[in-house]
Amino acid sequence: MVQTLRVDDIEIELDEVIEHIRKSGARIVGLCLPEGLKRKAGDIASHIEQNTGCTVIVSGEPCYGACDIDAALLDEVDVLVHVGHSRLLPVDYRVNSLRSKQHMERVLYVEARSTLDVLPAVRKAAALLKGRKVGVITTVQHVHTLNDVCALLRSLGFSPLVAGGDDRVCHEGQVLGCNFSAARCDCEELLFVGGGEFHPMGAALATGMRVVVADPYLNEARVVDTRAIVKQRYAAIWRAMDKQRFGVVMCSKMGQRRPHAALRAVALLREAGRDATLIMMDDITIEKLEQLGFECYVVCACPRVAIDEYATFPMPVLTPPELEMVLGRRRMDDLALDEILEG
Amino acid sequence: MVQTLRVDDIEIELDEVIEHIRKSGARIVGLCLPEGLKRKAGDIASHIEQNTGCTVIVSGEPCYGACDIDAALLDEVDVLVHVGHSRLLPVDYRVNSLRSKQHMERVLYVEARSTLDVLPAVRKAAALLKGRKVGVITTVQHVHTLNDVCALLRSLGFSPLVAGGDDRVCHEGQVLGCNFSAARCDCEELLFVGGGEFHPMGAALATGMRVVVADPYLNEARVVDTRAIVKQRYAAIWRAMDKQRFGVVMCSKMGQRRPHAALRAVALLREAGRDATLIMMDDITIEKLEQLGFECYVVCACPRVAIDEYATFPMPVLTPPELEMVLGRRRMDDLALDEILEG
Repeated sequence: MVQTLRVDDIEIELDEVIEHIRKSGARIVGLCLPEGLKRKAGDIASHIEQNTGCTVIVSGEPCYGACDIDAALLDEVDVLVHVGHSRLLPVDYRVNSLRSKQHMERVLYVEARSTLDVLPAVRKAAALLKGRKVGVITTVQHVHTLNDVCALLRSLGFSPLVAGGDDRVCHEGQVLGCNFSAARCDCEELLFVGGGEFHPMGAALATGMRVVVADPYLNEARVVDTRAIVKQRYAAIWRAMDKQRFGVVMCSKMGQRRPHAALRAVALLREAGRDATLIMMDDITIEKLEQLGFECYVVCACPRVAIDEYATFPMPVLTPPELEMVLGRRRMDDLALDEILEG
Repeated sequence: MVQTLRVDDIEIELDEVIEHIRKSGARIVGLCLPEGLKRKAGDIASHIEQNTGCTVIVSGEPCYGACDIDAALLDEVDVLVHVGHSRLLPVDYRVNSLRSKQHMERVLYVEARSTLDVLPAVRKAAALLKGRKVGVITTVQHVHTLNDVCALLRSLGFSPLVAGGDDRVCHEGQVLGCNFSAARCDCEELLFVGGGEFHPMGAALATGMRVVVADPYLNEARVVDTRAIVKQRYAAIWRAMDKQRFGVVMCSKMGQRRPHAALRAVALLREAGRDATLIMMDDITIEKLEQLGFECYVVCACPRVAIDEYATFPMPVLTPPELEMVLGRRRMDDLALDEILEG
């Protein structure tokens, strides 16, 4: 019997989880679910307990991606089952060397697949494409559709390309919010299959290419317009120009921890005569930033933080490349998305 | 030169911090500050860096007590300086045995002292005392005033008693939000010196004694009235009676982690035919509880969570002794504060 969990349009195979836990000899199992699946925590935990005899501890923390490992829970369990995201290699793991990357080997990533039919939206998007050579990118929950997407595009006269990303990416054509390596291919424009604003916007900013979105959730197609976000980024950069007291935020989430980027930002600021304090936090929230009271922040974590939450921050919040622009170390016309690349 | 940091009515000796770090040979130092001192993070970090040559990383997480150790930061640093609270021995440290209590030995607790004069409020409180043998209790920032408080009480004809607490408590007469062992002494009533509602309320609930408050922040005295809180607790207990799907929350904060209490709650619930899922989270917030969607929660962390935040939780949230009442394992007239006792 293949045990598949279905929630709305999401499908997860639980058999491989049970099999893996049984083989591992684990006694205590952690379970992390993305927000949309958290309400199934009781059912999944009880399924695992009944089929393995293990004790299951559910993570009550929000989980925003493969980078977002509940480290406190990982410390308690023999295996941590992380549902909904594909395996991610952490980069720049820690300042100190107290623990090792092997810690992450106890994390079992269980992908979730969307059951949505993406082809109607792709058909609409095809009408917006201008070139013939189209790079096709998507997020993990739709990667299994890329063969069908390419077949459809070919039948419509296009030459689709699905490129492999770097070591941080599991699947061909897959992009992360911080990694658009699979979008850098020999094409005239990009087709993004999926929902939300950040991934297609990120692809456009990272590659400078025209990006068409096929959104299966809204069953619509659109062309990405980066003009508003670019203006917002320059506004944040200009507001930071005269600030003296900077907080440099390193995220404690395992897959977003870039101590070397943070230490470099501190060094650049001090060389430029500004005050810089190194800060570590988990979720980066306006409440926590306000409590610390610095005039400006450089966030060395997920690039989404500075960019997606622009409107909510009362103080300027920059990414590391934007800090370089403030300090005159990068040309002002060279705005770059702060990607986290390589394994 | 004795370097003392003063913020409002709070005083911290920084010399001992510098001395300790120098002796420890640390290269990377973490710094945790309570909310009221967070804005001094940049100054204190820079003072430590200049006087020790270490790299300092500031915790951006909220810090509510000695129990609230930023474990992700502790992993990164050689010494974690935790300001404002007295040393606490963690209890029931972990389910698993992957790490040891020795981990906590790298935490340097630096107490903060209030410079407020407590005696005017104590003089007002003395007028409300009914007995002669008065047990005197307070929180860590006022413990250094207890000699003067007792001298004043004696001059007014009282016999003050300052009792030692159990191993979780550092100073005679000191109470924690989860530990009123120092309030259990041979007295007729209690005098609490300090601000806020929870500590004196907790002392009254824990001991059943009359508690008079001398509040130096408001410069006022009052008698604790537990009637409203007792009604609220019974309301939560009764609302939980017919619930089926329980989440049992174990806090990941090192000093609040009571896995055995949590595992016992899960076992009791299942024996009683209810569904129970074990959950771990850091700060326990309404957003996280709602996201998980259980009908009722048992919180095995700080007793303040269930009690102080009663009004904000839409679902019943119980402490472990209250769960026992729901399941018929404790008499309904035996409402107990959920203390965390012993070292």
